[in-house]
Amino acid sequence: MTKARTARRGRSGGGAVRRAERTAVRIETAKYIERNIPNFEILNEEALEIIETNAETILEEIGVNFVDNPPALEVWRNAGADVQGERVHIPRGMARKLCATAPSMIKQRARNPDRNVEIGGRNLVLAPVYGPPFVRDIEGGRRYATMEDFQNFVKLTYMSKWVHHSGGTVCEPTDVAVNKRHLDMLLAHMTLSDKPYMGSVTEPERAVDSVEMSKLLFGADFVDQNTVMTSLININSPLTFDSIMMGALEVYAKANQACIISPFIVGGAMAPVSVAGTLAQVLAEVLAGVAYSQLIRAGAPVVFGAFVTSIDMNSGAPTFGTPEASQITFGAGQLARRLGLPYRSGGSFCGSKLPDAQAGYETANSLNTALLSGVNFMLHSCGWLEGGLVSSYEKFVMDADQLGILHHMARGVDASENGQAMDAIREVGPGGHYLGCAHTQENFKTAFWRSDLLDYKPYETWEDEGARDTETLAAVRVKKLLADYQPPAIDPAVNEALHDYVARKKASVPDAFV
Amino acid sequence: MTKARTARRGRSGGGAVRRAERTAVRIETAKYIERNIPNFEILNEEALEIIETNAETILEEIGVNFVDNPPALEVWRNAGADVQGERVHIPRGMARKLCATAPSMIKQRARNPDRNVEIGGRNLVLAPVYGPPFVRDIEGGRRYATMEDFQNFVKLTYMSKWVHHSGGTVCEPTDVAVNKRHLDMLLAHMTLSDKPYMGSVTEPERAVDSVEMSKLLFGADFVDQNTVMTSLININSPLTFDSIMMGALEVYAKANQACIISPFIVGGAMAPVSVAGTLAQVLAEVLAGVAYSQLIRAGAPVVFGAFVTSIDMNSGAPTFGTPEASQITFGAGQLARRLGLPYRSGGSFCGSKLPDAQAGYETANSLNTALLSGVNFMLHSCGWLEGGLVSSYEKFVMDADQLGILHHMARGVDASENGQAMDAIREVGPGGHYLGCAHTQENFKTAFWRSDLLDYKPYETWEDEGARDTETLAAVRVKKLLADYQPPAIDPAVNEALHDYVARKKASVPDAFV
Repeated sequence: MTKARTARRGRSGGGAVRRAERTAVRIETAKYIERNIPNFEILNEEALEIIETNAETILEEIGVNFVDNPPALEVWRNAGADVQGERVHIPRGMARKLCATAPSMIKQRARNPDRNVEIGGRNLVLAPVYGPPFVRDIEGGRRYATMEDFQNFVKLTYMSKWVHHSGGTVCEPTDVAVNKRHLDMLLAHMTLSDKPYMGSVTEPERAVDSVEMSKLLFGADFVDQNTVMTSLININSPLTFDSIMMGALEVYAKANQACIISPFIVGGAMAPVSVAGTLAQVLAEVLAGVAYSQLIRAGAPVVFGAFVTSIDMNSGAPTFGTPEASQITFGAGQLARRLGLPYRSGGSFCGSKLPDAQAGYETANSLNTALLSGVNFMLHSCGWLEGGLVSSYEKFVMDADQLGILHHMARGVDASENGQAMDAIREVGPGGHYLGCAHTQENFKTAFWRSDLLDYKPYETWEDEGARDTETLAAVRVKKLLADYQPPAIDPAVNEALHDYVARKKASVPDAFV
Repeated sequence: MTKARTARRGRSGGGAVRRAERTAVRIETAKYIERNIPNFEILNEEALEIIETNAETILEEIGVNFVDNPPALEVWRNAGADVQGERVHIPRGMARKLCATAPSMIKQRARNPDRNVEIGGRNLVLAPVYGPPFVRDIEGGRRYATMEDFQNFVKLTYMSKWVHHSGGTVCEPTDVAVNKRHLDMLLAHMTLSDKPYMGSVTEPERAVDSVEMSKLLFGADFVDQNTVMTSLININSPLTFDSIMMGALEVYAKANQACIISPFIVGGAMAPVSVAGTLAQVLAEVLAGVAYSQLIRAGAPVVFGAFVTSIDMNSGAPTFGTPEASQITFGAGQLARRLGLPYRSGGSFCGSKLPDAQAGYETANSLNTALLSGVNFMLHSCGWLEGGLVSSYEKFVMDADQLGILHHMARGVDASENGQAMDAIREVGPGGHYLGCAHTQENFKTAFWRSDLLDYKPYETWEDEGARDTETLAAVRVKKLLADYQPPAIDPAVNEALHDYVARKKASVPDAFV
């Protein structure tokens, strides 16, 4: 069984601990996944070399744009790139060489050290959905997300055993001014959860706020010496790096905080309709972005990102859980490993408007691919609906439950004497059954993954209880989790300092909604 | 694009062809999958050797039971096994040696030669659900299956592009006598479809009927010289071979017809709760069964089968789409390849009572595993619901649509010049988009798998059209397919001979319902 860690109750004392233990929902978080299974390698050596060669050709001959960012152009020029206007032509091999200073493993600290994660190697760290402006639940339907929704998703993440990371913009709190909502979002991650979190990237100064608030939470020295945030820097594919994202990257790189440098690919729109072509572009973009981060600060922790979907050529809609997206996800994992960088991809992707069968198929296709692709950090691992427009309460707990499957799959096959179970086979013999044998008695509690949500009841019982579908069962679980939620203990002085910071910053400028 | 084959209209003439072409639903069947991707190998060499050694130990020391079958015991005794009562102890290495005469590739003929399939190698042949006593549809709910349902599922299979094989007991037609329903089932497969099919196994004499009717359909000489059926022989795990299944196997092996020799494993009940233990038992069972088939007729075509699920230790219910079942499916594939036999496993497995999100997750987990496990014949690839108790109309078309994903995934990554798309990347450049570029125009029709069922519409359109979930969309497709169905042409004399055979056999004995 994956080692589960009971939440530290800190200052809440013995009484609170005993009360918490009486609640049905236990707050425990599994350790991040440490794979004991191979990765699925879809590309052969020849294809890998072709793609790597093409990526270098793209960088040298076509180049990449660093837009509205003269200092970045100066950095590139000084490094030896051929800069023409905003176009940076990177000589063959130069970007890959610069990438070599990026660490292959990132240890991100949480305020509860039991929740620290290590992103890289054979590990897989799971974080929730990021970015949707809408939420959906079974009773309220689809509506704009609010700060209350945001807090609810942070709470659900905190209470989800198989989710290791609190994520970032679990939904867009549209009822808070655009120029201030990052403060409330950070405050929620820092105070309602003790799992590691992401910083703001929507303006460089919001990245600064993220670093400052982290210093209040962890102490300034600690933040100087440790990575306490992993933030999402999207590339404007094809081949374009905008000044806002690069500005946030610069802040984080200088502060030694981690960034995911991630092409955002809707195949057929932002990349070619072919897998090998898309992979060459993705690799070129990541090489350029990571190289730039290392020019800002050699050794800055960065992740090879790939957000990949494809377009439906009939309707223009993005599609999810498709075989082409899976192939790119598999291939990008191989490219990331050859580059020696941690890899971010995958998620609970679906295009469905409802948490229905379509959502289930598409999400499972995506999650399985991510596991076998060697992904090290999976953003969007639960709660994603409607192509990322919606954070779904019910789908959140459905997906979070499925993440247990990834943990158990990754354990691999136990070929020890106990795993071989020859005593059991001898004991039971032909025609018998294993339900009561000694080996079963000793192992059944940890032998099989078990859903905390899905229906396993006899048909008649299920029918008597209302013939509930998965969404209905999930709605019950959402309510129970939110009702049972208790915040992790926090030093009152730290809590106050964070609230003060947020209040002060909010008071210092008028609201802006663009 | 996978090569699609338009149905031959045979005698129906030009007018019928033109009429058929005007219907929206085209009757085309993709060629069976020929993988251009690697298999996922979850077991390392050491684990494989341990499991293979343990399987031999099981056969030699524990043995297997051939129940109520003195001739089989005699066969084993003559082959050199140590027979004690009904228990057959097979000396280490003997079963594997006997398996060597079984072919590694099985060419099964269909009455339409365009539908022939080759089971083995890197191929994957897809067949529908097998065995449920119930059906479900959105309007009628769950009810006992009838012969009309059976015919409907044969029609749906015939019309499903990604399903290559008509299967066998697509549901149990409970309104026909148990001792006669096999005749009606075979007649349906032979006349309502032109895809390859399975024979009856529920009594040896029903296997004889299957061979006789096949001779009417194909001609006696053709059946003598070719494999025209692949039938399902379940092993009563653990380690027990009953006389009915072995009787059917004997009929088919002597007639050179293919059999899947398949342990039926609910882990924790019919096998140990551990993966390595289960795999050793599965391998022992398959070795014994395949060896027996080769003792009946050396060279008889057989498939290494593994039906695998695990039990929910709290409720005793079988569970599907679990990581343990996937691990066993991956491992059994490796064992089958080392034995040089075609491999049957996987399916659209789920425990859900409804075609809802649970069904989607569990099914996608199972289908993805089957593809990457190197399965050569996937029974139950569409339509399975509620742990196999129910053939679902809606889930049938949902699953059948998802099977297109397996076809596209298996194509692998095209690293040709066109696949590399460097011209497109040059043409579009930084900040552009690929929607209109020459490479997209040339490739978009075949670049991406596209669902024929799932919702890709804008939110507002989808809402205006009734905010339909996947099940509702699937129900529309079921009705359209059945309304559009037209039987493939058949020689009237053959058709009459088949109907005569069925009528004569049915009249020859009274109905029996046990």
